Amino acid sequence: MSEVYAARRARLRERCEAAGSEAALVSGDANVRYLAGGAPPGATLLLGAGQDLLCCVTDPFGYRATDHPAEDVRVLVLAAPEADPAVAAAERAVEAGVGSLAVEEHHLTVARHRALGSVAPGLRLDDLGTAVEQQRLVKDPEEISALRIAAEIADQALGELLESILVGRTERHLALELERRLVDHGAAGPAFPTSVGAGPNSGLAGHTPTDRRVEEGDFLSVCLGADYRGYRSEIARTFVIGTTPADWQIELYDQVFAAQRAGREALAPGTPYRDVDRAARVVLEAAGHGERLGPGIGHGVGLENDEDPRLTPSAMGKLDACVPVTVDPGVHLPGRGGVRIDDTLVVRSEADGGPELLTITTKELLAL
Amino acid sequence: MSEVYAARRARLRERCEAAGSEAALVSGDANVRYLAGGAPPGATLLLGAGQDLLCCVTDPFGYRATDHPAEDVRVLVLAAPEADPAVAAAERAVEAGVGSLAVEEHHLTVARHRALGSVAPGLRLDDLGTAVEQQRLVKDPEEISALRIAAEIADQALGELLESILVGRTERHLALELERRLVDHGAAGPAFPTSVGAGPNSGLAGHTPTDRRVEEGDFLSVCLGADYRGYRSEIARTFVIGTTPADWQIELYDQVFAAQRAGREALAPGTPYRDVDRAARVVLEAAGHGERLGPGIGHGVGLENDEDPRLTPSAMGKLDACVPVTVDPGVHLPGRGGVRIDDTLVVRSEADGGPELLTITTKELLAL
Repeated sequence: MSEVYAARRARLRERCEAAGSEAALVSGDANVRYLAGGAPPGATLLLGAGQDLLCCVTDPFGYRATDHPAEDVRVLVLAAPEADPAVAAAERAVEAGVGSLAVEEHHLTVARHRALGSVAPGLRLDDLGTAVEQQRLVKDPEEISALRIAAEIADQALGELLESILVGRTERHLALELERRLVDHGAAGPAFPTSVGAGPNSGLAGHTPTDRRVEEGDFLSVCLGADYRGYRSEIARTFVIGTTPADWQIELYDQVFAAQRAGREALAPGTPYRDVDRAARVVLEAAGHGERLGPGIGHGVGLENDEDPRLTPSAMGKLDACVPVTVDPGVHLPGRGGVRIDDTLVVRSEADGGPELLTITTKELLAL
Repeated sequence: MSEVYAARRARLRERCEAAGSEAALVSGDANVRYLAGGAPPGATLLLGAGQDLLCCVTDPFGYRATDHPAEDVRVLVLAAPEADPAVAAAERAVEAGVGSLAVEEHHLTVARHRALGSVAPGLRLDDLGTAVEQQRLVKDPEEISALRIAAEIADQALGELLESILVGRTERHLALELERRLVDHGAAGPAFPTSVGAGPNSGLAGHTPTDRRVEEGDFLSVCLGADYRGYRSEIARTFVIGTTPADWQIELYDQVFAAQRAGREALAPGTPYRDVDRAARVVLEAAGHGERLGPGIGHGVGLENDEDPRLTPSAMGKLDACVPVTVDPGVHLPGRGGVRIDDTLVVRSEADGGPELLTITTKELLAL
């Protein structure tokens, strides 16, 4: 596995040199983990000034395997807990004779950037921009395999919940039970805070579970994901509680389902991000829900739950093969509730069978 | 309650004006919540340019009561999800004729700071520094009362766990059960990820729970806290599993307990932060554990789990009355395990009865 990380770092060093910077200082947490193979939060990675160096304030060889860096990365654990690993790394760069250092201006605060400048006045600080985020867009087979397991775990946790009795239980308890089941099935933890919305709370994106109890006739929407080896899946489903859904529930469900399917079917290498959004959005606009839609209908997943690409009306760029994304449209009718349907998929060419669905729980409208 | 937030904002505006800035732009999440009374993550608060203005991309009047701003704060929900609330707020400041704006350079990234500069070229950007964090140090009675309830909830969750059977259960399951119990007792959620360490993992600060099962003869250390109305308690206790602790366990426990007591007893208005650290540290150094100690022996708690003041050897400053802190020394012996004892207390003068202990679970060495 060490070679994978070495290749990623080599690619970044090349890109950095081509842009005119001698070395790079990576400080975004997910970016550092992606390149180093593992790192504790707050660590900084210095590339291009001798051997690649990971600076951190906590020992990465603790108990979390995801914190262990690759063997060929040199590790410097700073003794002073208040020390800034980025500053320490910049000092090492200067000692190694580096004259220009590209930093992540979208991760470093103004205060930290100034501290870098003052410990190394002769050092020119360039902007690395989102070079690492761009490198992370297309996933390799190992990464996709981790996401596949993360999706499987979420499917299992959700499947078990559906077999239990739901009426009378609160949103909070259902969310906690889902998180326990994620861990039971091998997740390091939830990929993001599990959302459970019942009745009027159903269909709300990112709804924080409350003490509302599940009642007969409710829509119940659930959004969860597993963190498996740092990779994060996402799935949402909406159910009806009781025997027969009401007409408005069937109608709304069908509309959101059609939009989600349209979004999934739009996933192909070369498709502009905004066209995926558009494909799903037009379906819900036609149904009169245009004003009720969220900012986008999906996003990338990987080492972060919500990463590039963003499938929004104004997003720039096109999908590539092997980019995992969610397709997650939802509609909420104030006072009544709503529907959210969300899958994690991997973009594949038609020759490769089209989009690969990782979260396979049924999307039929189940009455529980 | 609205007056409390208005008074906090007035104080910050005055401080800002005294430092020569016409207006202030607050972007640290906890700082925004502290001043606005509530806000969704990522919101930015503009003070001193007409009516105080909260800019956000999600509607704060959603389902989380802690996101609701005070009534006299004007709210601007930005339509574009990619919009930066700080940039929108800076634009409003310019429209209001503001010439100089103090921003939080330790929260704003270089990229966002540059975006502020480019939308408002005539605007002078000053540094607000940690003015709001300093204002947050001393808590008012409402805040302390929220922390008191947060501590009570953690005590209850821990107390119930101790009555259950522990042998054979994994660290992960115990941690999840504790988090469920926190929510049962009224917490919005855990204050931070619950840590449970058994056997060789016991006593490690911030240990992420694993599949290690609790065994006879183990030390079991547990660290948890509740989030109640945004305020976060913290408690850690260490137990012995089985009937009789081994001699080394009794000895180590007594040493850490003595250090923790010395730290607690050092809490008084006017005591330098570093002296509290010193009081606990010398006890453990004398016992030969100097090399095994963490960076500090406590920290402030409030809207964040780990906030100012930091009780470390190099911290500058002195305690005030009504500052809530943890005292949390621990020693871990590699391969064997260790002890961590942690309380949340409020600094009080001797006339007021001395330090007020919020987490009241017994610190006797219990054999479970």
